Amino acid sequence: MKNAFLNYIGELQNSITSSIEKVDGSAKFKVDEWKRPEGGGGKTKIIENGNVFEKAGVNTSAVHGQLPKSMQDYFKTKNSNFFACGLSLVFHPKNPMVPTVHANWRYFELYSLKGKIKDQWFGGGLDLTPYYLFKDDAKHFHKVCKDVCDVHGKELYKKFKDKCDSYFWNSHRKEARGIGGLFFDYLRSENNKNMEDWFLFITDVGDSFLNAYLPIVNLRKNHNYSSSNRIWQEIRRARYAEFNLVHDKGTLFGLKTNGRTESIFISLPPTARWKYNYIPKQNSEEEKLIKILKSPIEWVK
Amino acid sequence: MKNAFLNYIGELQNSITSSIEKVDGSAKFKVDEWKRPEGGGGKTKIIENGNVFEKAGVNTSAVHGQLPKSMQDYFKTKNSNFFACGLSLVFHPKNPMVPTVHANWRYFELYSLKGKIKDQWFGGGLDLTPYYLFKDDAKHFHKVCKDVCDVHGKELYKKFKDKCDSYFWNSHRKEARGIGGLFFDYLRSENNKNMEDWFLFITDVGDSFLNAYLPIVNLRKNHNYSSSNRIWQEIRRARYAEFNLVHDKGTLFGLKTNGRTESIFISLPPTARWKYNYIPKQNSEEEKLIKILKSPIEWVK
Repeated sequence: MKNAFLNYIGELQNSITSSIEKVDGSAKFKVDEWKRPEGGGGKTKIIENGNVFEKAGVNTSAVHGQLPKSMQDYFKTKNSNFFACGLSLVFHPKNPMVPTVHANWRYFELYSLKGKIKDQWFGGGLDLTPYYLFKDDAKHFHKVCKDVCDVHGKELYKKFKDKCDSYFWNSHRKEARGIGGLFFDYLRSENNKNMEDWFLFITDVGDSFLNAYLPIVNLRKNHNYSSSNRIWQEIRRARYAEFNLVHDKGTLFGLKTNGRTESIFISLPPTARWKYNYIPKQNSEEEKLIKILKSPIEWVK
Repeated sequence: MKNAFLNYIGELQNSITSSIEKVDGSAKFKVDEWKRPEGGGGKTKIIENGNVFEKAGVNTSAVHGQLPKSMQDYFKTKNSNFFACGLSLVFHPKNPMVPTVHANWRYFELYSLKGKIKDQWFGGGLDLTPYYLFKDDAKHFHKVCKDVCDVHGKELYKKFKDKCDSYFWNSHRKEARGIGGLFFDYLRSENNKNMEDWFLFITDVGDSFLNAYLPIVNLRKNHNYSSSNRIWQEIRRARYAEFNLVHDKGTLFGLKTNGRTESIFISLPPTARWKYNYIPKQNSEEEKLIKILKSPIEWVK
């Protein structure tokens, strides 16, 4: 399972980055490989100042060793060794009409100090953060999410869509980070699913990522936009940074377990803007977005 | 004590904002008064897009009521009422040669549910965050800090300077937010100082703020700068935002106790920039700053 998923995310990193390079038409991913002193390491691939993508990062990592103190408390377990691997990506487009996207797929194993497996699970998801709301784009993204879930269980889409809305909630702003997608965690062998079933599920989700996102990029990347659209994008990017720095468990976890800060922070927007108490004009496109973020809706049935 | 300090911060807010308006020469502070549903409220004064100050905010607040759950854990006390008041300010100048400054002075009282005072203390400080290091400016700022401390106790400057360096430590970057100043907390009636002594101390610190900062602003505000100096300023402003959102107790506290987000976030920079793994050129002015931030030094003896 460990090796199968490790291979999978390695190949997925390559296929996603080559597709993104094609769509961008100009930028090439820069590659940084890094080692974790306590065991394992990762590969960070990043574009800055592309044609389409102002910043786009795809990380893979596979780390192992003794479970750090902070993670012991988090998982409520002591004296364990662990293995964790995953892929995470965030793409920040230049054009404010193209949404930002985030995805992450990860696998975790816990062992007794003698090396016996105690627990194993998958987690992850994908979610979309538009600056201007095109309902067709939101429906398309959620439709791809639902279709891939439906193959594995009719209850999964609603469950993981709801989890996504509640996880990416910027509580101090009383609004969602974006329009959601899927979020799942602790997918374990239980009830009617074993780890192989979840492996098939999560790899299907990974394989559907480009189908969910690229059609939207291609549709919107040549839209006209004004400097005030860009300012709005930067104000919203600041909310993105707020969520990641204040609330996101993965980010804080990485920082507190001595992760590689620059790899963790590929998720942060290239630029951000904090204006005091900025309130969009009534009935503006900006206000329409906020309304949806304040109370998430169903995009597909 | 409560009323004396409340009056003091009200007057200080007015005197600081009028001095800042004079130095800016163009902007006028916008005033927002707000109420806290659970008791008390505050006054936020803010400038955006001034001549000298791109964003400058001065908050005062006085809140009271039952100690919220999150604060009970923090102060290790139950069944208490509280009163808290303070002034906090952050000035983000436009010119990268002018440093950002932060200051905060606060007073806290805890009562039994019957209204008897259980505890009371002062806290606060002031600290400077340059984008380019002018040693004379750093020395001047620290000299003012030291002079005001020395009047009240020869040991105070070193103690509060060291606390400032350790508090404003951006641990995930292994660097300080800025070049420090003073930081103190839980100044209680004990040993050779009573609350009146600390009141005289903290009001002396408050009164010295403009002397510590304005001469630096006046000296640097007309310096030439390039667009690459601005980009460096924005990269450093992102570190400022990281500190405030990830580490700053006051910010997280405010967000978690349902404070007014827009007033808390006047501290955040007007713009910020996250470039991947940006490393300044050897022997550049940018690198010189980083070296000082990585290992804080003594500025005055």
